[in-house]
Amino acid sequence: MTTRTERLATWAAVLQYDDIPQDVIERTKDLFLDWLGCAIAGRDHPAVKAIATFVQQMGPTTGRSELVDGELGFSTSPAFAAMVNAASSHVVEQDDLHNRSIMHPATVIFPAALAVAQDLGANGKDLITACVVGYEVGCRVGEYLGKSHYARFHSTATGGVIGVAAATARLLRLDSAAMLSSMGTAGTQAAGLWQFLLDATHSKQVHTGKACFDGIFAAYTAKSGLLGPHDVLEGPKGMGVALVPGTPIASAIDMHLGSDWAVLGSSFKWHASCRHTHPSVDALLNILATYPVQFEDIDSVVARTYQAAFDVLGLSGRGETIHQSKFNMGFVLAVTAQKGQALITDFTEEALQDASLREFQERVKMELDEDIDAAFPQKWQGKVIVTCKSGERYEEFVEYLKGDPQSPLTRAEIETKFKALAQYGQVKAMDRIQQIITRAWALEDQGSLTGLWL
Amino acid sequence: MTTRTERLATWAAVLQYDDIPQDVIERTKDLFLDWLGCAIAGRDHPAVKAIATFVQQMGPTTGRSELVDGELGFSTSPAFAAMVNAASSHVVEQDDLHNRSIMHPATVIFPAALAVAQDLGANGKDLITACVVGYEVGCRVGEYLGKSHYARFHSTATGGVIGVAAATARLLRLDSAAMLSSMGTAGTQAAGLWQFLLDATHSKQVHTGKACFDGIFAAYTAKSGLLGPHDVLEGPKGMGVALVPGTPIASAIDMHLGSDWAVLGSSFKWHASCRHTHPSVDALLNILATYPVQFEDIDSVVARTYQAAFDVLGLSGRGETIHQSKFNMGFVLAVTAQKGQALITDFTEEALQDASLREFQERVKMELDEDIDAAFPQKWQGKVIVTCKSGERYEEFVEYLKGDPQSPLTRAEIETKFKALAQYGQVKAMDRIQQIITRAWALEDQGSLTGLWL
Repeated sequence: MTTRTERLATWAAVLQYDDIPQDVIERTKDLFLDWLGCAIAGRDHPAVKAIATFVQQMGPTTGRSELVDGELGFSTSPAFAAMVNAASSHVVEQDDLHNRSIMHPATVIFPAALAVAQDLGANGKDLITACVVGYEVGCRVGEYLGKSHYARFHSTATGGVIGVAAATARLLRLDSAAMLSSMGTAGTQAAGLWQFLLDATHSKQVHTGKACFDGIFAAYTAKSGLLGPHDVLEGPKGMGVALVPGTPIASAIDMHLGSDWAVLGSSFKWHASCRHTHPSVDALLNILATYPVQFEDIDSVVARTYQAAFDVLGLSGRGETIHQSKFNMGFVLAVTAQKGQALITDFTEEALQDASLREFQERVKMELDEDIDAAFPQKWQGKVIVTCKSGERYEEFVEYLKGDPQSPLTRAEIETKFKALAQYGQVKAMDRIQQIITRAWALEDQGSLTGLWL
Repeated sequence: MTTRTERLATWAAVLQYDDIPQDVIERTKDLFLDWLGCAIAGRDHPAVKAIATFVQQMGPTTGRSELVDGELGFSTSPAFAAMVNAASSHVVEQDDLHNRSIMHPATVIFPAALAVAQDLGANGKDLITACVVGYEVGCRVGEYLGKSHYARFHSTATGGVIGVAAATARLLRLDSAAMLSSMGTAGTQAAGLWQFLLDATHSKQVHTGKACFDGIFAAYTAKSGLLGPHDVLEGPKGMGVALVPGTPIASAIDMHLGSDWAVLGSSFKWHASCRHTHPSVDALLNILATYPVQFEDIDSVVARTYQAAFDVLGLSGRGETIHQSKFNMGFVLAVTAQKGQALITDFTEEALQDASLREFQERVKMELDEDIDAAFPQKWQGKVIVTCKSGERYEEFVEYLKGDPQSPLTRAEIETKFKALAQYGQVKAMDRIQQIITRAWALEDQGSLTGLWL
């Protein structure tokens, strides 16, 4: 009998570029450029620097795989390059989000696939095919693991590592059996706890960096004959039993393969805060745009949301660091109300010290909304109720967010976001920025994938 | 308020060689030589070869850290050398076992500490101190996670990675805060599922190899400023919540630090089968030695044991491969009855094909014994009841096993075992074997730790 995991592995091993619909290819390119910007923007983070130092100590300092941070002055092997670049792209909270799986696929799939593709001398079509495979496998695993898993584990890492293994295996042209071994060896390494959120420590970058390293490890060793467990998802001692307190969603593993594409189910992040704040940010922005309300007028805000938002947002305290502040609903809505937006340039040390923001923050309350919770993570809905000092009361409900699959960013918006992120990452040369954009929009025509960093 | 994890980290950061009692130092040397033999014996395994190939592809092929397999012809960085050597030492089921934590500390602590010590040019006393720290931290974490964790996770990896981080951090002379970060970053990477046992795949070696890599990653990045979560064990989103279905044993983390030594709580394996079979093997050997019973006389055997033995031994089916056969209680007791021992040379392809062993195997039954289960893992007891074809019935109960802390192997026995394992690993030069033994017994006097492989 064929297991669901075997069917997924076989699909992943045989998918060809020509099998992929054009809209999936185009969206993959959108997500790729979006990811490049995130990686560049995060490269000065201390966790990224520490991981790069580790690579310098442990790895080769020559190789075909390039590091996002050119100032480091070396290239390395694909497992190590991917580790650094993945860490870097999960810093500024601007990387994509696959709704149903509650994971961020770009930050693990693209760094791994790009570094391996550079190592193998693969072309743009190879890269796109591998990334489509990686998104599909990773997000399906994340959806299988589900909400109860996400309450404890950073699904981007635990599902991501299997997606990385699949993308890498596809680039290595492994057959179905070796693809299955890759996924199995990846799954038995799946890890990543939320504990770091409580004290603003650096595991978030460790999780994405190591998901890349571990998934690449899984695929390369599978190529050399290392056997992975056949049913690491649904087996009696597999991830579904060990890592899922609730009931995993088995059908997610292989339902509608080849017709329901994970790439098309991924959302862009427009705001620079945790995605769990976005439904409330969008609802608040609607209120600000629709009614005569300004920052100073607001007495209190109620953000009605789903349980997973409480699970994650509740861990970052008052938001003492820039990163933590992006996980504090009160602070994020305060920024939104004050600035009329919540972009990367709005979360600063100055903002952290702004007494009016801090005071506003205290007047924001989160409430669990059962209807919204029931719809999550199929839909990331939000409802915001603003009560003004005047006594006026405004309420907004949002069903879909800016950047959601139902309203993705336009190419112009993606370019704008990329330029902002590149500048945030200290890139000065606008011609280089434009050159990268041009290459990304023609990714399928790239014979070589080197030189994509700034 | 100081957490238990902080107390453990502080203890680990400040322990000096001169603080360690002489019996702990001597036992560490015993365990070290015992481990060297295991690593040498496993080096031809396909999983080890595949991981070594990965190292060759991804890592530097020069470096100060040596690989157990000299035929590979290169040395590398400590993270990669440890990965290969750890994989190799967990192949032949002869590495040590810390009873209360149900984990194998040697196979993760020694490869990491030796590779890092070689890289840093540390001496024998540094190595011993780091290994004592690694055993203590790793085994205390394993005991904290407990039986319910072990039913789902390979504790050697999940506790081991934190022990590796601590041993490495000690060699790097990190302070208490960085030691805590090392442990936190290690804990958020903790992984390792038993699923591989069901299809005889290779994750066992992946788990120990990756525990070494990941723990070394944690300590080196902590040295470079990467912050790990402060309370990865007992925190609300930590390992105790996410990875323990039952109740963790909190007191294990820091009770009797510096007086109850994990090194002294570790057992040597004399038999070459899964340690969960050893209580029954010892009981059966007692019957064979005490009563006039031989292989041919036996009609049936009942092995009364604890639940964890069912959890693990139940996964390897009939024992189709040599490795699986060491996890099949029936087959192991058949070998024991036929050969009067269960050593590494007794588990062969010929034995797998031996119809009399296969037939005997079917007449062995495991039964859960509630008293034995209640005492586990403090005590690994066993009871065997043999019924002969003549109708005679013999019963033996064992409270402590050969190799247990209550009856450790003698140095002569350790040397005998080491020689057998080295020969199993194709080492021919007896003078080299003797030289390694001599160096191990004077480990504290070694100024350099290179050249310990054969």
